[in-house]
Amino acid sequence: MTQPYEWSVAEAAERIRDKRISSRGYVQALLARIRDYEPSLHAWAHLAGDWAEAQASQCDEDTVRGVSRGPLHGVAVAIKDNYDVIDLPTRGGSDLSDDKPAAADAVAVARLRRAGAVVLGKTAMTPFAAMDPAPTRNPWNGDHTPGGSSSGSAAAVGAQMCAAALGSQTAGSVLRPAAYCGVVGLKPTYDAVSRQGLMACAWSMDHVGVIARDVDDAALLFGVLTGAGPADSKDSDGQITVGIPDRGFDISDASDAEAFVGAVDVLAKAGAKIVSVEVPDGLQSLASAGILVMYAELAAFHRDLYSRRASEYPPRLRVLVEAGLSIAAPDYVNALRVRHHAAGELSSALAGLTVLLTPTTTSPAPSRQGSTGDWRFNLPFSASGHPAITLSCGFAKNGLPLGIQAVASHGREDFLFKVGRLFQQHSDWHKRRAPMKAGPI
Amino acid sequence: MTQPYEWSVAEAAERIRDKRISSRGYVQALLARIRDYEPSLHAWAHLAGDWAEAQASQCDEDTVRGVSRGPLHGVAVAIKDNYDVIDLPTRGGSDLSDDKPAAADAVAVARLRRAGAVVLGKTAMTPFAAMDPAPTRNPWNGDHTPGGSSSGSAAAVGAQMCAAALGSQTAGSVLRPAAYCGVVGLKPTYDAVSRQGLMACAWSMDHVGVIARDVDDAALLFGVLTGAGPADSKDSDGQITVGIPDRGFDISDASDAEAFVGAVDVLAKAGAKIVSVEVPDGLQSLASAGILVMYAELAAFHRDLYSRRASEYPPRLRVLVEAGLSIAAPDYVNALRVRHHAAGELSSALAGLTVLLTPTTTSPAPSRQGSTGDWRFNLPFSASGHPAITLSCGFAKNGLPLGIQAVASHGREDFLFKVGRLFQQHSDWHKRRAPMKAGPI
Repeated sequence: MTQPYEWSVAEAAERIRDKRISSRGYVQALLARIRDYEPSLHAWAHLAGDWAEAQASQCDEDTVRGVSRGPLHGVAVAIKDNYDVIDLPTRGGSDLSDDKPAAADAVAVARLRRAGAVVLGKTAMTPFAAMDPAPTRNPWNGDHTPGGSSSGSAAAVGAQMCAAALGSQTAGSVLRPAAYCGVVGLKPTYDAVSRQGLMACAWSMDHVGVIARDVDDAALLFGVLTGAGPADSKDSDGQITVGIPDRGFDISDASDAEAFVGAVDVLAKAGAKIVSVEVPDGLQSLASAGILVMYAELAAFHRDLYSRRASEYPPRLRVLVEAGLSIAAPDYVNALRVRHHAAGELSSALAGLTVLLTPTTTSPAPSRQGSTGDWRFNLPFSASGHPAITLSCGFAKNGLPLGIQAVASHGREDFLFKVGRLFQQHSDWHKRRAPMKAGPI
Repeated sequence: MTQPYEWSVAEAAERIRDKRISSRGYVQALLARIRDYEPSLHAWAHLAGDWAEAQASQCDEDTVRGVSRGPLHGVAVAIKDNYDVIDLPTRGGSDLSDDKPAAADAVAVARLRRAGAVVLGKTAMTPFAAMDPAPTRNPWNGDHTPGGSSSGSAAAVGAQMCAAALGSQTAGSVLRPAAYCGVVGLKPTYDAVSRQGLMACAWSMDHVGVIARDVDDAALLFGVLTGAGPADSKDSDGQITVGIPDRGFDISDASDAEAFVGAVDVLAKAGAKIVSVEVPDGLQSLASAGILVMYAELAAFHRDLYSRRASEYPPRLRVLVEAGLSIAAPDYVNALRVRHHAAGELSSALAGLTVLLTPTTTSPAPSRQGSTGDWRFNLPFSASGHPAITLSCGFAKNGLPLGIQAVASHGREDFLFKVGRLFQQHSDWHKRRAPMKAGPI
């Protein structure tokens, strides 16, 4: 007999649909688990327990009347604190932000709710999605960071407080925390999901993202978020070709690299063709141009607030704003051009592949003292806008999860799901759960 | 018996197709006219007479073999000097530019040539498409500017040296010179025609454009340039609704405004519904944000060359580069955001209209001393990327042509052609020709 918190989104939706549990009963079970572990995890910026139960009750009334709201009918999700949720303030992880309640849901939130989802509350994040750590801890080891900026979303899913959460990624803010917390993180193609109602970090690189525990759930939520429905593979029969970059993605600790080698092996044994890919020079340009673009856009967003309240800014964000303010417009323009050309080079490299496969991060989650970890392996694909997914692929020698990152051509999320499903059919890393202990971890 | 130089593109193509004239005969007739008037007009940066005759002869050989290259088979066109034409340098109106011959045709040029067009040569333009005057004179009155930056393209078509030419527009560089020279100028939707091989001025506002003498020719060339074929109206039967902005488009001289009033009257009598349109506030934002974006991108393009050869820069361009270099990246980023939102406002205002109709310019062509005229009425639509066309609509009291500018929703060039054809069916301003005199004008 499994517990409700163990269910995937699809499993919870099925049980609620079959009236084996009410939405309210499901939500109450999650709230109980959250109460047990939140004191030590700090995953939530605002838990909306009463409201969540009320939403669930309304779903249950619909169920009684034979009405299903959609594929997420009655299933609870968590929302990162930089998305507008009606009547709640959008704090973006900082007291410096406006505390006025949002007048409407962000488009991504509205789509989830229209499909029947119940909002549990808003998850903790690094202030303004930058690099100052959130209070959140890693569910696998509380001394380590859950990553950022979607710290609470990844930790909540990793700790089985909910089956799925919205995150957002500008450099590596979905894939990195998802990998650190041993769950699935999806960053769709740039602009595939509306950013309306998402607080800007760096607008030309901001992506709506999904954190879940398996690929099917990520695909299900992606279909809801795009409004396109279930995101099944468009050509599920074709040969899978997995490209491994010939350089630039070295894991810090050689023994930890074995998990990546093992993951490639799983795919090879499952029938995928593995090829070595010469990394285009543009990948380095994507990173350097992406950083410049990101800092300039971040500074544009913060300039007015920063001019009034610089002394209250957290130190890492402050450095970024100062850096962005000092960039000259022609440098930014050139960075946009460099990024555009480099993204084209990367698209060419991806054209012959189902996915490019890399480690998701340079290492497992580092200590939570002062850092949210390194987004170096994720940034190029945030800058280029290519869709990317991370899948749990094993554990480092310190017992923390490691992930593989798959990247596909623009608009080919179906390739990510196809490779991801193959991997999860032939491995069970996605079924491992953080060994949570109640109380301080 | 009309002269070859009087023919439209469509008329020349038909005569060549019917073997009533050879392409070579047609080209020779144009070259003779160019030789007569070029000494006073200065429309050409590089006249490629021998090459043009050779291209024409090849077309004629195809004709003999029963092969038509396409809708422009054997028809001569002029190319603005900022487009790559194979084996010719792309000077962009300046000796400061690289004089290396282009290795390939720009995409726009290649499309014209694949459709059978013969390239006569490259037309004069303001240096780097900025605001320092070209040597070109206005065919209607040599003391006046032909406008810029597509000075030579507009003057050549206005002086009947050729039936059509490529121009380019970043602020008002196609519509303004076309209006000043009494011809048709088309700026399609941003990105509707590839800019590959077009020297950048300000990349996010650069548009490939067409200068011709009637709407049918502009539509014909547009169809060739997009590769979509003849650009006929998609709904030629519907009611035409013409919006007149309620403010912001006042012609300097009240008596010259009568031509605009008369043009509206022509359309009303021809059955168009005329409505007053409240100009969105965003129109002013489009202009101010557009200028900032343009200067920053222009400076990005020039920075390296300018750092080495600033003292050789023409004075107006120098001011623009200096201005652009001083812009901070966050200001540019904010200008992009303002532009994006304002373009959305304008799109909403255009949604209920077939076209928005304004005077093309604030006045007829000013004196050629030091200025290429005012692009104030064109800039917002270059910044927003909406397609626009100018049609000759009469003459100012000083005898110089005036134009009306029609603007449509993104991708609705067919609306421009529909309104333009209706106007030209019910007026004959487009048949008036500059009273050219050989020798100095």
